[in-house]
Amino acid sequence: MASMAAVLSKTPFLSQPLTKSSPNSDLPFAAVSFPSKSLRRRVGSIRAGLIAPDGGKLVELIVEEPKRREKKHEAADLPRVELTAIDLQWMHVLSEGWASPLGGFMRESEFLQTLHFNSLRLDDGSVVNMSVPIVLAIDDEQKARIGESTRVALFNSDGNPVAILSDIEIYKHPKEERIARTWGTTAPGLPYVDEAITNAGNWLIGGDLEVLEPVKYNDGLDRFRLSPAELRKELEKRNADAVFAFQLRNPVHNGHALLMTDTRRRLLEMGYKNPILLLHPLGGFTKADDVPLDWRMKQHEKVLEDGVLDPETTVVSIFPSPMHYAGPTEVQWHAKARINAGANFYIVGRDPAGMGHPVEKRDLYDADHGKKVLSMAPGLERLNILPFRVAAYDKTQGKMAFFDPSRPQDFLFISGTKMRTLAKNNENPPDGFMCPGGWKVLVDYYESLTPAGNGRLPEVVPV
Amino acid sequence: MASMAAVLSKTPFLSQPLTKSSPNSDLPFAAVSFPSKSLRRRVGSIRAGLIAPDGGKLVELIVEEPKRREKKHEAADLPRVELTAIDLQWMHVLSEGWASPLGGFMRESEFLQTLHFNSLRLDDGSVVNMSVPIVLAIDDEQKARIGESTRVALFNSDGNPVAILSDIEIYKHPKEERIARTWGTTAPGLPYVDEAITNAGNWLIGGDLEVLEPVKYNDGLDRFRLSPAELRKELEKRNADAVFAFQLRNPVHNGHALLMTDTRRRLLEMGYKNPILLLHPLGGFTKADDVPLDWRMKQHEKVLEDGVLDPETTVVSIFPSPMHYAGPTEVQWHAKARINAGANFYIVGRDPAGMGHPVEKRDLYDADHGKKVLSMAPGLERLNILPFRVAAYDKTQGKMAFFDPSRPQDFLFISGTKMRTLAKNNENPPDGFMCPGGWKVLVDYYESLTPAGNGRLPEVVPV
Repeated sequence: MASMAAVLSKTPFLSQPLTKSSPNSDLPFAAVSFPSKSLRRRVGSIRAGLIAPDGGKLVELIVEEPKRREKKHEAADLPRVELTAIDLQWMHVLSEGWASPLGGFMRESEFLQTLHFNSLRLDDGSVVNMSVPIVLAIDDEQKARIGESTRVALFNSDGNPVAILSDIEIYKHPKEERIARTWGTTAPGLPYVDEAITNAGNWLIGGDLEVLEPVKYNDGLDRFRLSPAELRKELEKRNADAVFAFQLRNPVHNGHALLMTDTRRRLLEMGYKNPILLLHPLGGFTKADDVPLDWRMKQHEKVLEDGVLDPETTVVSIFPSPMHYAGPTEVQWHAKARINAGANFYIVGRDPAGMGHPVEKRDLYDADHGKKVLSMAPGLERLNILPFRVAAYDKTQGKMAFFDPSRPQDFLFISGTKMRTLAKNNENPPDGFMCPGGWKVLVDYYESLTPAGNGRLPEVVPV
Repeated sequence: MASMAAVLSKTPFLSQPLTKSSPNSDLPFAAVSFPSKSLRRRVGSIRAGLIAPDGGKLVELIVEEPKRREKKHEAADLPRVELTAIDLQWMHVLSEGWASPLGGFMRESEFLQTLHFNSLRLDDGSVVNMSVPIVLAIDDEQKARIGESTRVALFNSDGNPVAILSDIEIYKHPKEERIARTWGTTAPGLPYVDEAITNAGNWLIGGDLEVLEPVKYNDGLDRFRLSPAELRKELEKRNADAVFAFQLRNPVHNGHALLMTDTRRRLLEMGYKNPILLLHPLGGFTKADDVPLDWRMKQHEKVLEDGVLDPETTVVSIFPSPMHYAGPTEVQWHAKARINAGANFYIVGRDPAGMGHPVEKRDLYDADHGKKVLSMAPGLERLNILPFRVAAYDKTQGKMAFFDPSRPQDFLFISGTKMRTLAKNNENPPDGFMCPGGWKVLVDYYESLTPAGNGRLPEVVPV
C-alpha cells in the first residue's frame, strides 16, 4: 500500500489528490434517479455546516487521557465481562458515536424500540432511527457473578480491561424473537446469528459505556479508521457542502465508480459547490466468502491510484460496524451511522445488505424493499436517499454503464458470485469492468488462499 | 339473552342500567398502577369532546344508500376476488374506520411500514400507529384474471359482491418475512398463520375500498356490533369525559371486574366526572380452544345482570377484528383501534394478546413486553396506557384481589387453562372467582361440546 501510505504520511486520510483524471465524465443525463420527495427535502438544505448528528450532539464515550489510569484501577475491582471480537467492534462503534445518541449497550427499552419500531424516542419527543440491536449478551454464570453490582468492567480476550458499563440493566435475551424481528426469518445459516447469537448467553446487559482508550486493531489499517468526529473535521476542512456516503463491503468495480461519479455530477447540477464522496467500506465482521478488509483496502487503493475516482473529492475511511446481512433493517443502520459522520446524502442500491436465503433458493429480501424501507424510515427524514439504477457491462461500449431496459441484450450482469469465480480461476473479466490493478488484487487474494500444490480452495474461506 | 334483549329493545346498546349495585367499592387504594408518564400526558386532556380519531377524521368506507345499486352493477363487471371469512372480518374493520386513516387493504408502502415501524407516516408528516398488516392475499390465477384492470370486485362465499377495490396495487406476499416480523417467530402452529397465511396466495392486493353495504353476520349479535361512529355517538350521549377501553377475548371473571371498577375510581379521583368503560370483546377469528363469541356474550350478560359491573357506566360492544395472538405487536392494534372508537385510556394487562409458544414449553412473549412496547409505541402518544397489577384469588378474603407480593401464600392463581379445565369437568371455582350465573354459562358451553353418551371432548373445539 505504498502510494496510499505516502500520501497518508502527512494526514491520516486522503485529503490530497493522487491523480486528477476522471474517466467517467461522459455519462448520460439523469442516470441517477432522484425522487421528487428527495428533491423537496433538499430545498433549503444547502448551507455551510454539516448535517447535525442524531440527537443534536455527537456522543463520544472515550475516557479522557488524565482519567484513564484512575478508571483502569476502578475496572480492576468490578465484576468482569469478557468481550468477543464482535462485542469489541460494537464497543468501538458506540465509543465514537456512530450510534448517537446511544450512550452504551442497549437497555431493554431501547432494545424493544429497536426491534419493534426501528427507532428510539428521545426525552424531548423527537425520534432517531435505530434499526439494529446493539446489545451485549452474558450467560447465567456471568449474571450470577455480577450479582447486585451496578457496574461491570468489560475485558478483551487478552485479559485487559477496555471499558466500564455503569447503571447496568440485565434482561432476558429473547434470541428467537430478536432474530425473527431483525432478519425477517429464523432459518438456520444466517452468518451473524451463527457467529454472535446462537451460542451467546441468555441475558443482555445494557448500561452507560465508558471506553478506557480509543480502539485500535494494530492491523496496519487503523489510520483509515476515522471516527465521526475526525470525519467531520476532514469534511469541514474540505469545505464540503454536500456529503454523499457509499457503504460497501465488496471490491469496487467501475459500475460503483460510475454511480459515485454520476452522483457528484448531479449534486453539482443541483447547486452544491463541493460535494464530497465518503467511500466507506465496512470493517467489522463479514461472512466467510466476502473478501476480507485488508484485501479490499488494497483493492480500493488501486482504484484510486488508477484514477477511477477523484481523490480530491473522495474520503476513504473504514466503518467499524459488524455486518448483519439484515437487508432493509440493516440499511437503515448503515444510513443512520453516516448521518453521524456528517453525510446528508446516502446512495442505496439494489438489495442493500442482502444475501441469498440461507435455506431456500432465492434472495432473502425483495431487492427493492431496502430502498423503499429506507425512504420511509422514521428518524431518517433529514437524510437524502439516492436510489440508483442498476449498472451492468455494456457490450456495445465496452464499459460499465447504467442498464438500459430498451436494449437488454447489450448488457452483461456480472454478479458477485461470477466476479469471485473469475478471480478465483485467475480469469479476466471483460475490459472496463474493473481497473486492472484492482482486479490483480482480487486474483492475488484468491491465489493466497490456495494451498501450494493443491489448486483447490478451502471449503470455508477464513474471515 | 332475555334480560339483555329487553334492555336493548329501545336502543341497540347498553345505555340503561340493569342494576346499580357495585360490590367492589371497598378496594385498596392505588390498586391500578398509573405511571407518572401517563399522568403527565393526561394533564390538560380533561375536556368536553372525545379523543380525535387517528388522522383527524374517522374513515367510513360504506357506500351511501342511493349509490348502492349503481355500485353493485359496476361490481358485476369487474374481475372477482373471493374473500375468506377472515378477509370479510378485515373488510368490516376497514369499512367502519377502526384502522383510520387506512382507506383499504394495504398497498406495499403501508405493508412495509407496518412490518418495520409498526406505524404509518401521513402526508403531513405526522405518524399513526399501525402494527398489524391488514392485507388481502390472492393467488397466481386470480392475479392473472385481474390482468391490467385497475379495479376488482370483492365477493363473499355466497357469490354476492360486497365491495370494490380501486386503484389497486398487486405486490409479492413475503409470507415468511411477514410472519417473522409480526410474531417474532416462524414456528409452526400459530393459529392465525395456519388459518390465514400459510395457504394464502403469493400476492397481496391493496387499494381504495368501497363496501357496498354495512357488514352483518345475522348471528343474533349484530346489535352489539357498534361501529366507531356509533360508539362515539353513544359515548357523547352519555357525556363521557374519559373512556377506558378493555379488550377481551375470554370470559369476564371478578379479577377483570375488580380492575375495571378500580380504574373508574382512579379516574374519578383524577378529576374526571364521568368515566365510561368500553367493555369490548373481540368478535373476529379466535383460536379453537378459546370460548366462542356467542357464549362469551352470554357470559358477559350474566356478569352485568349480577351487578358485578355497573351498566350505567359501561358500554358493551363487539370489536370486529380477527385475533392474531401476536403479543406486543398486536396489543398496539387493539389500543389504536379503540382510539378511533373514542377511548383515551387503555387498560393493558400481563401478556396481552399472548399465548403459549407453539413449539417450545414457554410463553411466546415476555409477559411484560406488551405493556412496555405499548407505552413506547409511535402514534399512541395521545393514549393513556393503564397497566394493571395482577389480580388473583385472595384466600384470606375469599375473593379476587390485586396480588400482594408481601403475602404470596395467600393467593391462588387461576389460569385460563385451569378455568377451562374446571368448567369442562363441571367443577366449581372458589367462591368469588366469577359470579355463579357467568360460571354456569361456561359449564353449559363445555357441556354443549360433549357428544351425548361419550363424555369426552372432541380434540378440536369448533371456532
